[in-house]
Amino acid sequence: MAVEVLDGDEIRTNLSKGLGFSKEDRDTNIRRIGYVCRLLSRNGVAAISAAISPYREVRDEVRRLIEADGAAFVEVYVKCPIKVLAERDVKGLYKKALAGELTGFAGVSDPYEEPLAPEVVIESNREAVEFSVTKILRELERRKLLPEVEADEHSTPVRSALDAESLELLTDVRVLA
Amino acid sequence: MAVEVLDGDEIRTNLSKGLGFSKEDRDTNIRRIGYVCRLLSRNGVAAISAAISPYREVRDEVRRLIEADGAAFVEVYVKCPIKVLAERDVKGLYKKALAGELTGFAGVSDPYEEPLAPEVVIESNREAVEFSVTKILRELERRKLLPEVEADEHSTPVRSALDAESLELLTDVRVLA
Repeated sequence: MAVEVLDGDEIRTNLSKGLGFSKEDRDTNIRRIGYVCRLLSRNGVAAISAAISPYREVRDEVRRLIEADGAAFVEVYVKCPIKVLAERDVKGLYKKALAGELTGFAGVSDPYEEPLAPEVVIESNREAVEFSVTKILRELERRKLLPEVEADEHSTPVRSALDAESLELLTDVRVLA
Repeated sequence: MAVEVLDGDEIRTNLSKGLGFSKEDRDTNIRRIGYVCRLLSRNGVAAISAAISPYREVRDEVRRLIEADGAAFVEVYVKCPIKVLAERDVKGLYKKALAGELTGFAGVSDPYEEPLAPEVVIESNREAVEFSVTKILRELERRKLLPEVEADEHSTPVRSALDAESLELLTDVRVLA
């Protein structure tokens, strides 16, 4: 199974250089990621978008476009209290934002609109990574996007795409298959 | 066989809104198209880029990135004298550019750097469309990118992607498979 992970930083470098973090620029960035996910998913490539996408409206717009092509959109909300994110954050950005040193920081000094009806919610502060991964894989199986397998037999590409490090660092993941 | 045609105007709308037609902006636009072609081609989707791409260096940069992933890059130079393009052009842009009314117009008031070693050259002013299409398909077969078939049995997706209208309108096509 072909899988592409569209990392937020990589997309900003390759498709969105020059865009900032205003609502308008964030929306444009997400629309571009959505467009690429659409090209991939309608050709049978599972596209995993790991971008910070704080605005509900543009997320739903991308969902509609993907689904209009007959592909599936699986929104995975990786939920975690800001306090825990600040403790984990290797770049120290959350602490700076909480101290008022960073403006426009999603979830602290800028809005973060929680998904209203995500297909999967991961509570990354209270779940083991293996448990969270299994929740996602079970949802993909339930929707016939992955063949049903035993819990310990999941295929390597999906596992490596959703490895422990990714899940720890992400605050918000969308899986588009 | 999965095929995507990345039309120049569509890409400008979806990935490059805000970019103009300076060398820098044109190069950025081509890099973005190249990035998307790369994601598609390394997952087995044949990506056909139909953008105007007047600068050699960025074309070769994209070629290197695609080939570095183990995918094939097939440059199809659709060659045609400016005079003939002006006669065909339904939008009347070539005539305006030739009259000095449009600046930054590739091939007239802006550079167009011909490919030095394209895999295929189409001389669209002196070849029948069917002949040009066959040249491209033969090259794809020769490189094992398409199974070898009789001249009149080519598969529908590639034919429709490279239909008569596209070939007439394009001045420069790159096929990335």
